Amino acid sequence: MGETTLLGIDWGSTNARAFRYDRGGTVIDRRHREIGLLRVADEGWEATFHDHFGDWREEAPTAPVILCGMVGSQQGWSEAPYVACPASTDVLGANLHLIPKSNYLIVPGVQTEDTADVPDVMRGEETQIVGLHLGETHKVCLPGTHSKWVQLDNGLITEFQTYITGELFHVLSHHSILSRTLEEGKPSDGTFLRGLDDSERNGGLLHHLFGVRGLRLFDKLSGSAQADYLSGLLIGNEVRNAIAHLTMDQSVTLVGSDELISRYVIALQHFGRAVEVVDGELAASQGLWQIAEQAGLIGSP
Amino acid sequence: MGETTLLGIDWGSTNARAFRYDRGGTVIDRRHREIGLLRVADEGWEATFHDHFGDWREEAPTAPVILCGMVGSQQGWSEAPYVACPASTDVLGANLHLIPKSNYLIVPGVQTEDTADVPDVMRGEETQIVGLHLGETHKVCLPGTHSKWVQLDNGLITEFQTYITGELFHVLSHHSILSRTLEEGKPSDGTFLRGLDDSERNGGLLHHLFGVRGLRLFDKLSGSAQADYLSGLLIGNEVRNAIAHLTMDQSVTLVGSDELISRYVIALQHFGRAVEVVDGELAASQGLWQIAEQAGLIGSP
Repeated sequence: MGETTLLGIDWGSTNARAFRYDRGGTVIDRRHREIGLLRVADEGWEATFHDHFGDWREEAPTAPVILCGMVGSQQGWSEAPYVACPASTDVLGANLHLIPKSNYLIVPGVQTEDTADVPDVMRGEETQIVGLHLGETHKVCLPGTHSKWVQLDNGLITEFQTYITGELFHVLSHHSILSRTLEEGKPSDGTFLRGLDDSERNGGLLHHLFGVRGLRLFDKLSGSAQADYLSGLLIGNEVRNAIAHLTMDQSVTLVGSDELISRYVIALQHFGRAVEVVDGELAASQGLWQIAEQAGLIGSP
Repeated sequence: MGETTLLGIDWGSTNARAFRYDRGGTVIDRRHREIGLLRVADEGWEATFHDHFGDWREEAPTAPVILCGMVGSQQGWSEAPYVACPASTDVLGANLHLIPKSNYLIVPGVQTEDTADVPDVMRGEETQIVGLHLGETHKVCLPGTHSKWVQLDNGLITEFQTYITGELFHVLSHHSILSRTLEEGKPSDGTFLRGLDDSERNGGLLHHLFGVRGLRLFDKLSGSAQADYLSGLLIGNEVRNAIAHLTMDQSVTLVGSDELISRYVIALQHFGRAVEVVDGELAASQGLWQIAEQAGLIGSP
């Protein structure tokens, strides 16, 4: 096993993915811990870091540590400012934020504004995106609680939009009138596809969501199928809006590794789009290394 | 005071509006009680009825009692079947549901289906609508937790759509990431108007909702203005979709009496529509009388 040259952690709202790299940038060890932002609050960031990664630190006390994700938010370990679009590996590497009283560095978030001056933000996804090594023009989608749709031009993040699809699914499933009749069950692709199709009707999302209730009332949808249909309505609405201005020959690169990705693959293919899927953990590990290298954190071998 | 000829109650999810009518159909007494469906569950419908309206009943033990609203739902006093569109005073009056072991009657709900066979339903609004005495063609909007947009042709309810706008506002304000930074404050029409305008941007509602977060993060929106902006985004989305297929010269009749109505007036006028506002309680009291008369419940004087 090679000497540890860098520790990198993609530390988000729900979990942390940590990587130990050798001199050549190969990941020689990795850890996945359920220690997201909300859990860390009580114990503190530094204590949590040492509980979970202290042994790595002891083994390589001089290796630089680079972090990205919600660890750099207002509620995180230390607030890392945002950089504006267009953002690239260069810009990210040149704007690392030093956590006070430490020598740990946090990758900045990225912000953009739309034509109505409404800001949008990302933290963590920028690192995955630069880790993709995509050239030319790409539309990249990172599904999640807050899905990101990113325009990438020659390695530059030029603009992006966030959709609260995942959060709305959660909130509606737990706290709305729909929660009363929702049941656990085996996922059904057929019902999901109907939700995708029904997301195109007149009336828009606020009307479509009441349709879940209507279908249940007349037993046209089982309690266990309700989640699939709701998921289809929401993902359908997001994807339709996100691809509305793409030409038909533009493909979409999906970044992630969980179950949710397969739903986005189905949705995009259902709407006639070519899709490429890239592993999210691989993208994060490559991005952290690449930004650290760009920032000069890694000495020449 | 004339003799009581009819007791009518519009009994919904959150409250009951009760009317005592004289021989000519004039309301001679009225009560507004916070005894909606969810509150009644424990005590039972019959006991609640007698607690709040028992004295009326004693005073006029032979007067018929007619009810409408969620009192006739699955979770209500007794389930009244739905009638299909097109529905009118005649159809409603001919399909009253008798609560077992009583002589109280419940107005049926109304159902419709859209082109994708997704059912939609109303309970209570149908009574208000027939109480409006509108001839010819009208588009009627009844704002609320679940807003209804109803097509009325020569006194017939020919189709309608429900929007969960009010419920989504509540759920997002209390259970989403937006709830963390929401503060109480004086309503601001300016911020509400910005929300209306911003509801037209690219990306759709799921993207626009994340914009509330973006504006707060960069202090472009105060915590107390956040509710107005969110309200503007949601009502803007509903109204835009609901009027999308109206010709520009078609006006909208708004039914209601609370604060919410003024928001819909602002929204519709902002989108260039003529608006007429009708009091919801008046509509309910007239509708109950009219359906009872149609059903032959009220003897000739």
